[in-house]
Amino acid sequence: MQKYVSIHLDRTNSKPLYQQLFEQLLDLIKQQKIINNEKLPPIRKLANLLDVNTVTVVNAYRLLEQNNLVYSRVGSGTFVRIPANDVSNAQDTEEKDLHEYDVPELKMMDQGQVEISEDAINFASVIPAPELFPVDDFKIILNEILDRDKGNAFGYQESQGFLPLRESISSYLEQNGIITRPDNIQIISGAQQGIDIIAKTLVNFGDYIITESPTYTGAIAAFKSRGARIIPITIKDDGISIEKLEKAIKTFHPKLIYTMPNFQNPTGYCYSDEKKKALLELSAKENLYIIEDDSFTELSYDNIERHPLKAIDDNQRVIYIKSFSKIFMPGLRVAFLVSPENVIPDLVAAKHSSDVSTSGFIQRAFYLYLKKNLWKKHILHMKNVYRERYLVMLESMRRNFPDDVTFDAPGGGMTFWAKLPNACSADEFYKQCLESNVIITPGSLFYPDNHDTNYFRLSFAALYPQDIEKGIVELSKCYQRHAASPRLKKAEYTPLL
Amino acid sequence: MQKYVSIHLDRTNSKPLYQQLFEQLLDLIKQQKIINNEKLPPIRKLANLLDVNTVTVVNAYRLLEQNNLVYSRVGSGTFVRIPANDVSNAQDTEEKDLHEYDVPELKMMDQGQVEISEDAINFASVIPAPELFPVDDFKIILNEILDRDKGNAFGYQESQGFLPLRESISSYLEQNGIITRPDNIQIISGAQQGIDIIAKTLVNFGDYIITESPTYTGAIAAFKSRGARIIPITIKDDGISIEKLEKAIKTFHPKLIYTMPNFQNPTGYCYSDEKKKALLELSAKENLYIIEDDSFTELSYDNIERHPLKAIDDNQRVIYIKSFSKIFMPGLRVAFLVSPENVIPDLVAAKHSSDVSTSGFIQRAFYLYLKKNLWKKHILHMKNVYRERYLVMLESMRRNFPDDVTFDAPGGGMTFWAKLPNACSADEFYKQCLESNVIITPGSLFYPDNHDTNYFRLSFAALYPQDIEKGIVELSKCYQRHAASPRLKKAEYTPLL
Repeated sequence: MQKYVSIHLDRTNSKPLYQQLFEQLLDLIKQQKIINNEKLPPIRKLANLLDVNTVTVVNAYRLLEQNNLVYSRVGSGTFVRIPANDVSNAQDTEEKDLHEYDVPELKMMDQGQVEISEDAINFASVIPAPELFPVDDFKIILNEILDRDKGNAFGYQESQGFLPLRESISSYLEQNGIITRPDNIQIISGAQQGIDIIAKTLVNFGDYIITESPTYTGAIAAFKSRGARIIPITIKDDGISIEKLEKAIKTFHPKLIYTMPNFQNPTGYCYSDEKKKALLELSAKENLYIIEDDSFTELSYDNIERHPLKAIDDNQRVIYIKSFSKIFMPGLRVAFLVSPENVIPDLVAAKHSSDVSTSGFIQRAFYLYLKKNLWKKHILHMKNVYRERYLVMLESMRRNFPDDVTFDAPGGGMTFWAKLPNACSADEFYKQCLESNVIITPGSLFYPDNHDTNYFRLSFAALYPQDIEKGIVELSKCYQRHAASPRLKKAEYTPLL
Repeated sequence: MQKYVSIHLDRTNSKPLYQQLFEQLLDLIKQQKIINNEKLPPIRKLANLLDVNTVTVVNAYRLLEQNNLVYSRVGSGTFVRIPANDVSNAQDTEEKDLHEYDVPELKMMDQGQVEISEDAINFASVIPAPELFPVDDFKIILNEILDRDKGNAFGYQESQGFLPLRESISSYLEQNGIITRPDNIQIISGAQQGIDIIAKTLVNFGDYIITESPTYTGAIAAFKSRGARIIPITIKDDGISIEKLEKAIKTFHPKLIYTMPNFQNPTGYCYSDEKKKALLELSAKENLYIIEDDSFTELSYDNIERHPLKAIDDNQRVIYIKSFSKIFMPGLRVAFLVSPENVIPDLVAAKHSSDVSTSGFIQRAFYLYLKKNLWKKHILHMKNVYRERYLVMLESMRRNFPDDVTFDAPGGGMTFWAKLPNACSADEFYKQCLESNVIITPGSLFYPDNHDTNYFRLSFAALYPQDIEKGIVELSKCYQRHAASPRLKKAEYTPLL
């Protein structure tokens, strides 16, 4: 993996080289070009690259250390300490650790937890608006559970999950073409936990993992927490290149492939049937597992049938994670995964050592919700609501966006992946839009190294149709106002690592 | 760490030595004397110990590998594959992996998730009986939340936790002598998750961690999942030996100490004030963190005041985990930890990459429950209920137990730590009691290597006073019936590792 950041030491400057190097590394950390727990280049290597004495690098690293910005591990090297890439904590971090450093505006997070003015138009949130949650139905269910099960609803729960819920999920999946047994299902507290316990089960320090690029960086964080190394492969509108995948497998012998085959986040791309098959064949041949992260398959608006990988997983290579946060209620923290049988015992053990079990009370409620077919009713409702928003947004983008801002029509999901001209910075565009009270997600949030790109993501999940139209008009104006501005120009990157 | 298991190769036997070794290792795995992911001794070392050729060991290990019972990691050695020590999965494991091996009766788990006959007297469960859960109060609260917050109750939640809940917890803690700010509190989905995210934040592959011995093996599992090595120090009735601790710190330079200073699980022991102070001084001097796992401090029946370590943590070395599972409702999956400020950003990041957040709905409900002072009312009620059971049990044990079965009066908590004569096996006693329809927890469940001991744990959490009396009488009879039986004799252990 190459990482592109630029460092230029000026030998004509009176400032010592180590001081210059310290300041530039500090800048890279502030700008989140170097992220928390990332390893800095080995001293000798960086000295060679920059053509300076190793003492210069040592002194610069020491200054970082004195500022508590790096730490070293015996025999391993020097690592950055700031949790700057965990955008969920961006505000905390700013407050507590970086106040003395004039940190640039921090990026907002994927899940809309940023403080925004009340009247901003928020294309960043991928959470359904709270008024779409089926609270009334769910209230009836909760009370039914409390009246029926009383204290038993609050006892300890089997780590694998409440059996009747697993049975209901198994039936539900059958209707979606996935044949499985309750024994192969593990209840989890959200997709993120699914990724975490799979990583605990299958990933050891130093293992390689193949991901799409761009991708969901929450997955990257879980993999990196296990000491894994990430091999990103660029995703196209029909999936990743199978040749590149084969080459990466030959070179790195990865443990896992992490993929979102239908309506990928953030791009909205779907794998072609051929690529789905090729992925499964390769994984069987090379004996590696695939994590299929599925949030959106149900939300298809174009009548094209798209099956999950898991539905054609004849060789038992796919661990399928199904999140309900995007189409149900994220605050419940319940999801499930379906795994090949031989991995299940270790997954259950990992779940147990992670948090013992997911709330039995919530599992019972969700079970009843499924059993009463309220779930199907809700999905259908959400699909109709989102289809309308999708169509309004598509039409509005076609009508309003200037010709040099392009996008695809994904046909499903909750997001569009739009593209500024190559030379433009989506990080800057994000800031400019914010000044116009419109929030977008810059593409940099979907790359492990957070590098600036000309892509940005727009979600319609939390917006009414009239706000979508208003926001797209505002975005278009904003682009036209700033298109010629030097501020919008993307910074050049040169390889450092 | 020394591990005691016995292997005896019989050179007069016609069976090849490698076959004998294979069968004995297989036995050790079946009996959970060697546990999942445990490393087998290096080939040369075992060959030396047993005085055999290395080829013998290689062949035995290969047979294990052919049976899918071990795997090897490049450059690291040979590791056991069966998840046999995760007792929560004991039944699954038995069904799926070990059916061809005639596995001995599997041990029941700490949290009462074993299938037992309805009329058994269960001294193993440390879960309050469901009728003690404040379901009616909680139902009113849940409905109030739903009516007031509607869909907002189910949105994404800040990873650190719902701020009003953290504020309420901060006030609650102040009354217990712990002065902290909401910023230093992290909401977690149970104590186990607290241990897991601390491990993710502070523990790297190969780090040493000091624990009490015996201890809560769920903590060990979380530490081992990070590749940590465990240094157990025997706990006495006033805590662990400070001299031994100092020596262990000098030898191993551990990252962490994991401790339960008040009413330790399983022993019920409390640290003396002197040892608490010494622990804090040592951790400050040696710059290491202490995890204080506190389930029971509130449940004190003897009017002796016992403060948490965190209340006197002047040097900010303690990460305090408070579980409510034992005194409130385990099925809610909500708990919190209090951490030194500088660790918080990384803990929040670890929480985010583990499961994004704990259910916002449940957090809101728990907040309202605290705010309405229902919590204090409930604690007081539980303390009265448990005090009665504690006194009944203590009295009954004093009256009924034979002289050679001994125990302490812990003065609080939910459990007694009882002791058979040295030569007796609590694993066997557990089986004999089971035949009499009484369930105890053998001490082996509280040691990382699950070695047999003469100790066992008795909990009164889930039993009515009349059943406690009945059960203790039955236990005493059972012991008297079997005391002379060779079956009750503890197996000899000889050091292997």
